[in-house]
Amino acid sequence: MSSSFGTLFQVSTFGESHCKAVGVVIDGCPPGLALTEKDIQPQMDRRRPGQSALTTDRQEADQVIILSGTENGKTLGTPIALKVNNKDHRPKDYGDMRDIPRPSHADFTYQMKYGIRASSGGGRSSARETIGTVAAGAVAGKILREKYGVEIVAWVRSIGEIEADPIKATTLTRQDVDTTVVRCPDAQAAEKMAELVGELKEMGDSIGGVVSCIIRNVPTGLGEPTYEKLEAKLAQAMLAIPATKGFEIGSGFAGTRLRGSQHNDPFTVKGDTIGTLTNNSGGIQGGISNGEAITLNIAFKPPATISLPQETIDFEGNKAILEAKGRHDPCVVPRAVPIVEGMAALVILDMAMRQEARNALRF
Amino acid sequence: MSSSFGTLFQVSTFGESHCKAVGVVIDGCPPGLALTEKDIQPQMDRRRPGQSALTTDRQEADQVIILSGTENGKTLGTPIALKVNNKDHRPKDYGDMRDIPRPSHADFTYQMKYGIRASSGGGRSSARETIGTVAAGAVAGKILREKYGVEIVAWVRSIGEIEADPIKATTLTRQDVDTTVVRCPDAQAAEKMAELVGELKEMGDSIGGVVSCIIRNVPTGLGEPTYEKLEAKLAQAMLAIPATKGFEIGSGFAGTRLRGSQHNDPFTVKGDTIGTLTNNSGGIQGGISNGEAITLNIAFKPPATISLPQETIDFEGNKAILEAKGRHDPCVVPRAVPIVEGMAALVILDMAMRQEARNALRF
Amino acid sequence: MSSSFGTLFQVSTFGESHCKAVGVVIDGCPPGLALTEKDIQPQMDRRRPGQSALTTDRQEADQVIILSGTENGKTLGTPIALKVNNKDHRPKDYGDMRDIPRPSHADFTYQMKYGIRASSGGGRSSARETIGTVAAGAVAGKILREKYGVEIVAWVRSIGEIEADPIKATTLTRQDVDTTVVRCPDAQAAEKMAELVGELKEMGDSIGGVVSCIIRNVPTGLGEPTYEKLEAKLAQAMLAIPATKGFEIGSGFAGTRLRGSQHNDPFTVKGDTIGTLTNNSGGIQGGISNGEAITLNIAFKPPATISLPQETIDFEGNKAILEAKGRHDPCVVPRAVPIVEGMAALVILDMAMRQEARNALRF
Amino acid sequence: MSSSFGTLFQVSTFGESHCKAVGVVIDGCPPGLALTEKDIQPQMDRRRPGQSALTTDRQEADQVIILSGTENGKTLGTPIALKVNNKDHRPKDYGDMRDIPRPSHADFTYQMKYGIRASSGGGRSSARETIGTVAAGAVAGKILREKYGVEIVAWVRSIGEIEADPIKATTLTRQDVDTTVVRCPDAQAAEKMAELVGELKEMGDSIGGVVSCIIRNVPTGLGEPTYEKLEAKLAQAMLAIPATKGFEIGSGFAGTRLRGSQHNDPFTVKGDTIGTLTNNSGGIQGGISNGEAITLNIAFKPPATISLPQETIDFEGNKAILEAKGRHDPCVVPRAVPIVEGMAALVILDMAMRQEARNALRF
Repeated sequence: MSSSFGTLFQVSTFGESHCKAVGVVIDGCPPGLALTEKDIQPQMDRRRPGQSALTTDRQEADQVIILSGTENGKTLGTPIALKVNNKDHRPKDYGDMRDIPRPSHADFTYQMKYGIRASSGGGRSSARETIGTVAAGAVAGKILREKYGVEIVAWVRSIGEIEADPIKATTLTRQDVDTTVVRCPDAQAAEKMAELVGELKEMGDSIGGVVSCIIRNVPTGLGEPTYEKLEAKLAQAMLAIPATKGFEIGSGFAGTRLRGSQHNDPFTVKGDTIGTLTNNSGGIQGGISNGEAITLNIAFKPPATISLPQETIDFEGNKAILEAKGRHDPCVVPRAVPIVEGMAALVILDMAMRQEARNALRF
Repeated sequence: MSSSFGTLFQVSTFGESHCKAVGVVIDGCPPGLALTEKDIQPQMDRRRPGQSALTTDRQEADQVIILSGTENGKTLGTPIALKVNNKDHRPKDYGDMRDIPRPSHADFTYQMKYGIRASSGGGRSSARETIGTVAAGAVAGKILREKYGVEIVAWVRSIGEIEADPIKATTLTRQDVDTTVVRCPDAQAAEKMAELVGELKEMGDSIGGVVSCIIRNVPTGLGEPTYEKLEAKLAQAMLAIPATKGFEIGSGFAGTRLRGSQHNDPFTVKGDTIGTLTNNSGGIQGGISNGEAITLNIAFKPPATISLPQETIDFEGNKAILEAKGRHDPCVVPRAVPIVEGMAALVILDMAMRQEARNALRF
Repeated sequence: MSSSFGTLFQVSTFGESHCKAVGVVIDGCPPGLALTEKDIQPQMDRRRPGQSALTTDRQEADQVIILSGTENGKTLGTPIALKVNNKDHRPKDYGDMRDIPRPSHADFTYQMKYGIRASSGGGRSSARETIGTVAAGAVAGKILREKYGVEIVAWVRSIGEIEADPIKATTLTRQDVDTTVVRCPDAQAAEKMAELVGELKEMGDSIGGVVSCIIRNVPTGLGEPTYEKLEAKLAQAMLAIPATKGFEIGSGFAGTRLRGSQHNDPFTVKGDTIGTLTNNSGGIQGGISNGEAITLNIAFKPPATISLPQETIDFEGNKAILEAKGRHDPCVVPRAVPIVEGMAALVILDMAMRQEARNALRF
Repeated sequence: MSSSFGTLFQVSTFGESHCKAVGVVIDGCPPGLALTEKDIQPQMDRRRPGQSALTTDRQEADQVIILSGTENGKTLGTPIALKVNNKDHRPKDYGDMRDIPRPSHADFTYQMKYGIRASSGGGRSSARETIGTVAAGAVAGKILREKYGVEIVAWVRSIGEIEADPIKATTLTRQDVDTTVVRCPDAQAAEKMAELVGELKEMGDSIGGVVSCIIRNVPTGLGEPTYEKLEAKLAQAMLAIPATKGFEIGSGFAGTRLRGSQHNDPFTVKGDTIGTLTNNSGGIQGGISNGEAITLNIAFKPPATISLPQETIDFEGNKAILEAKGRHDPCVVPRAVPIVEGMAALVILDMAMRQEARNALRF
């Protein structure tokens, strides 16, 4: 297991879907930061289940509690332990699934890897594990905002075949994103998406989608070539989110069809610094941020847990029909938005701290 | 800088395009493995420049030398240092570029990050850095093959708009891939690709492409949730290759358009084990290998260094026209094939060793 | 901050003396281990304050709670979060010390490092932080015992000038150690020690001491040269315990006075394996365990917090007399015994797991 | 194997006694530092064999070569690979020892751990491995000196029973230390030491000793509690040097005999900062440097390889008399001086970089 991430701003998450609590320990948080639960809760609320009719019916308030690392509302520079209690578990819903591994879910692989697995819920593979990332990401995000003016905004770009019109992301805010229940800033597309998700929920089926993310005002010079290039750590972080199947930065797969003379981003003067006229690079060149906005797409598959009957086999190899009960999201992308933002914040802050160490010792 | 990768099978690379030597130190290689330079050289040869008329004209034999860690052709379990001398550098070709950062290249970001940069070649951002990955990957690949029967084969899926017909990858070999100069097993597509690349080389332009990779016979149970899920480490590894812009596993971005009932991979009996009927998961579920083949796509942008004139600015902010000299690849994907295979091997072996530790202590 | 330790069996501790809770997250625990709070509590009880008249008067039951990572009394292989609530804090006792840093305590250095510090108690430098080590060490100790038969026993060798007669450690148990209140198995010396500590408590002074530790039945082959030699990691672990000033393995400083012909441990047949006639090496040669018992001594200075008046200065540089209030141990070594055992277990288990990975891949 | 050390200034060593080359890769060196082989060679010369009649007769010039990471005499911020070729090996001298493991040497444990070992010399357990530490330590030492004025000086405090008079270390220089062939600044004691070592060399025996080290002008605030307290990492580093058996900081084992009222270091005004009147703490309190000099003692056992006949057994368990040939040091402490200094520099610089990152982000 590696439930830890980061070199200087290091997070370690814990918790399964149906244990006492899930949470995270943040080690290396800069001291003196004003921090209370109020700084963290808003992103928790954007992630929590039951927030709209389109998400799972599991009800969790997901109130975060700071156990250590702060005093009088300020960080001490010591490990910050954050905890959210699990409340609404219904292990009984999971009877069938003890014997029949859910297709495309983690039941089978967890059993093979560990020889044991949580008997209900998704255990450690549940999206509840992402609470740690979202909570720690909220802390990282606050530091990035206050120290560097970094802004991180993610949104739903597509659900199934329904794609939003191109979004003007240079000024997009989280408030803008939250104006629609599916977190897609294109209101027309959003309406269609909501309708589709509602239908699928009714049917007991599910659907995938794409989340886009922009990271603005990133200091130039972040990223640690060669194995920890900035895009490499962002890719790791995003593919560590449950249900992800793809990652793009800048021009992504579409860029492979272009010629260098079309794809290159010419340099230009921007105020008192050097920028680029276009941004096919997505804000990173040679593994290092160039000061332009970092732009990402992340692909999410349709959730594996559906209530439609599925022909499959049980752990003994006998043919079986699985009709999953439990409460599940028909589409994860609206709730994935704060998770993507959290992951982005963890990567950028850790890289910023590493670069600050270099800057301080530069000759 | 983080030029190290891996937890138990750990590699640390060194070297710039125009210094004395490039190489890698492998720490944690299992002892007793039969290993000489001959085990490593074939992949070096597939990566080296000047191997065909379609690649850069820089000529480097790229002969690998083992400095330590073996005796009488066997590994001692101690660090294996591997070195390749740099020979054919022509720093004079880089005169212009000292003042004018190449658009979409790493010149600008390296200068901003370090306050200094190699005065010629790509320095550390050069693809010569990947020699370490390819060399260490060849060692990892041999171990995986001998201990688990793992087979890793990458190939060129597309160059620009030219896409290969779907490849039957279940039996594809590296020999099959090498039957065409562009390393695309679809001979017809390969011919068009070669033609296009040749034209672009002539024109001084460049083009992107997609490399696919299959990893067969992966033991079930590899991957370390949650931040080091198997696909997350593969994504990091692939995005750490120069010029990459995207990553897909299994159904990738196309999978986002499907419904759960279409996308889920039902379980089925395969011989004496459990497998899946389809493989939209790409061999990984919940961050852990399920025993099916792992399937990846990696997007490469067109190389930034082109000799067509480019309107840009110099480091002082003055308008400038850059006409790059030096010798460069018009398309990197044919040479990227062994790099992708090397990265895949590093990830899989490290994960296999971590799982072996768990298995040994399991109750 | 690095509050994490270990490569495969990784622990991350959190908590200050006066926050809500202290604890630890264990990542990488082997799955299937029978584990409840009852396996951990005994070592917590040996560490807790208020356990005898010779320790601090602070009363803490230090009841450990498992938050995650187990189900039905078995480990899942997922992170195990362990928590102990803080109860008996009396911040008011610390009024003076806000302005006057305690000599030889961490008040000054924490303030300088972080620019902020906990306003009462020792904050993160408090010995309460060691709860995480003791709890995780109890888990590691159970695994080592069940998988390898490893036995770890520490005891008090000296307090001030009072030194125990040489202890026959080959069969010494924790029960033997606990027969005296100071945890010294030499009853006569123990009586004098207890008397001395009682006197010093009365006087408001404190005293140092030495803890010895034996680790029996260690598998041959543990330790990761060169920077993570077994003795190197043990030294790090022990010097990470508050108030430690020295570390010896085997012959230690006394061994520097011997000649090679006196100091070398000749090999001999022991049953069906090879052992040594003497054990000046302390069970480790070349950084790797040789199968003999590992023997350690750890030096603890007298606790810095005393209630005798001390001439010093305040943070502003003004002369001041400090008369510390609060409740403090006159001598830490009796309570340090389970901490030393915990640290030893963390090191040995992590090394055992790393060696298992190597063994599985050995050719 | 973990042949890597450090978090931000990370070194990875390679090489056995009788392979082609030994060396080190430094990853994370600050850019822009003036650096050529001349900065490194002096410490190599103090470490190299054959430097005086008292050391091993093996002759190695130990000329260091920079392979990468610098251009025009300045560091690029990229990995610096340093190499020293092995020249004077005489594998024939080791005939006997292939079957008979040298008592207290690493022959037995390496064979047990890896199932294979270098057939001559000490392989990876040879002191030649320390070349990497000394070379990287010279780089780290230069940075510390130029950025912070840090001074690191080690010397021989005792050999066998012969102990130097207390050394006034506040102004001691490496030049002072090198005035005697045994590197003991007390000329009278040095003479006796040299005589003793000479006699033992003649006899084919060996002797242990203690090296002391002072680190002056350390910035206040270095050290990463709780597992990476400054003294903990120093202890790890020193116990990773071959033949070490003990470590003390400040008052060490002697301090365990004192009372808190005697041992505490009262604070006082020193110029424009706060210091302490005494330094029993050895420059570290709570795991963090307090600005006073850091003072260490390191115990070295007598070298295991002696030419006096030793009654032991061979790998098959048969009784045997070992008379080691080969060329070996009768006492390692004079040559250990630059190794201790190198380890100290690696620890202090890495901690300084980590603290700079914190300082830059502090609120």
